[in-house]
Amino acid sequence: MKKLALLAATALIVAAAPTPGDIEAAAPASAWITVAPDALVQVTTPRGKFLLQLAPDFAPAHVTAIRDLVRAGAFNGGAVVRVQDNYVVQFAAAEAKIPPRTSQLAPEFERPLAGLAFTPLSSPDAYADAGGFVNGWPAATDRQAKTVWLQHCYGMVGVGRGNAPDNGDGSELYAVIGHAPRHLDRNMAVAGRIVSGIEQLSSLPRGTEALGFYKTPAEQLAVTAAVLVSDLPAGQRPTVMVMDTASTTFAAYVRARANRSDAFFVRPAGAVDACNVRVPVRITP
Amino acid sequence: MKKLALLAATALIVAAAPTPGDIEAAAPASAWITVAPDALVQVTTPRGKFLLQLAPDFAPAHVTAIRDLVRAGAFNGGAVVRVQDNYVVQFAAAEAKIPPRTSQLAPEFERPLAGLAFTPLSSPDAYADAGGFVNGWPAATDRQAKTVWLQHCYGMVGVGRGNAPDNGDGSELYAVIGHAPRHLDRNMAVAGRIVSGIEQLSSLPRGTEALGFYKTPAEQLAVTAAVLVSDLPAGQRPTVMVMDTASTTFAAYVRARANRSDAFFVRPAGAVDACNVRVPVRITP
Repeated sequence: MKKLALLAATALIVAAAPTPGDIEAAAPASAWITVAPDALVQVTTPRGKFLLQLAPDFAPAHVTAIRDLVRAGAFNGGAVVRVQDNYVVQFAAAEAKIPPRTSQLAPEFERPLAGLAFTPLSSPDAYADAGGFVNGWPAATDRQAKTVWLQHCYGMVGVGRGNAPDNGDGSELYAVIGHAPRHLDRNMAVAGRIVSGIEQLSSLPRGTEALGFYKTPAEQLAVTAAVLVSDLPAGQRPTVMVMDTASTTFAAYVRARANRSDAFFVRPAGAVDACNVRVPVRITP
Repeated sequence: MKKLALLAATALIVAAAPTPGDIEAAAPASAWITVAPDALVQVTTPRGKFLLQLAPDFAPAHVTAIRDLVRAGAFNGGAVVRVQDNYVVQFAAAEAKIPPRTSQLAPEFERPLAGLAFTPLSSPDAYADAGGFVNGWPAATDRQAKTVWLQHCYGMVGVGRGNAPDNGDGSELYAVIGHAPRHLDRNMAVAGRIVSGIEQLSSLPRGTEALGFYKTPAEQLAVTAAVLVSDLPAGQRPTVMVMDTASTTFAAYVRARANRSDAFFVRPAGAVDACNVRVPVRITP
């Protein structure tokens, strides 16, 4: 009798702690940031559509270059050219459709922290003075340099380049499909993330050439179209909301991610890294 | 003229610092540990063969249970039943072939550090007092409890269980196919890792049911056979060598991973987490 009562009490305590999913589902309207439609690219392939959210706060010149390429139709007829396991998927604009380049883009690998609300995590970050979040993005900071940059978490999208730091032009983009390759942080212009449909890319066959490039064009997944959501007819625009990482709701979400109270867990971690937080995103329709 | 000379000097400096690949390729025989053939399971599916290395030092009872299931043929006719993006692939023995269970397996979620050579990383770990390596495995430690456990890095294999910590029996195994879900550390018996062929699993279509389970058996990938390498005919046994994480070669490898000197990198990270180190593995033939 006593044992049963104890069990019931335990069950009550467990039920009382909201899970990350509970917090996400109950998040008030004020806890979300609506993404501007011109910061969203809808990409169509034979596998379906995926949505790329751009990061103009972090890589403004690269985001402008990507927008210009999308509007010029350069990605229509492009392809996924590279899939490297536990690393990246890379897609490229159609070479013949890339307008001649008039100048190089300056590297946008980090930016001043000033003017941004950085929400740090309490647990240490192996790669930076602090890991945390800015405007819904996983980020990290350098205390001395007072700079901030986006972390290469799963789904984040960067601009491919050669060895020269300024020769990426936005026509080759990669998305992370493995453990966060944080050694790329501050070495690449991180220009966005895939907010829906990444499973269409992460489940592609891996390329068998060096770095996961496909051997033949026949292996590549076609990019049939890429369009800015702001250029879609009004009735066809998906709405994307990202949880405001400066909100008290997000703080509760992070605590719940770090201290999983589901009955499954025997020992909550008590910590979480920024890439495992997985900032909630709501997409309609 | 001066500029060219400067460039040449820089190129020389860059070439002088060995890359992680250089160190791996040049690693002497003494830097490798040969995996015992009875700690290797060769699994065959219509996509090919993959190799699972077992971790008897960390989950001895679970490893024994897996070996017994393999020898009983329980995985022949099994299937991949679940693929959840950025999380895990789960494969299950054929239910009808699982011998009746005579007792529960005690949880093997961590173990005493005593008797093991733990090589710590110098950078902090978000989830533990220290991240590092033991006997070729990515691991982490609790300084006060003097315990050690395997990290849930990409490719690591754990034993599925229900909410009860002791009801995993080795007949359902999951492999990590995304950013390391470190919140599972110390909550699961990590019994091994996939040392080759994981791309056959990570590129599977994601399941559309809750937790990535497939909706229908037709979607599942069949497991046609699983056999201990020690039970293969002598001429058919692959040899697997894992770099000795206590060796000076491995220390140099970790330094090179943390400080990438390839011409591509403008700012070496100066740090690396255990999952990004990716312990080198050599497989022949």
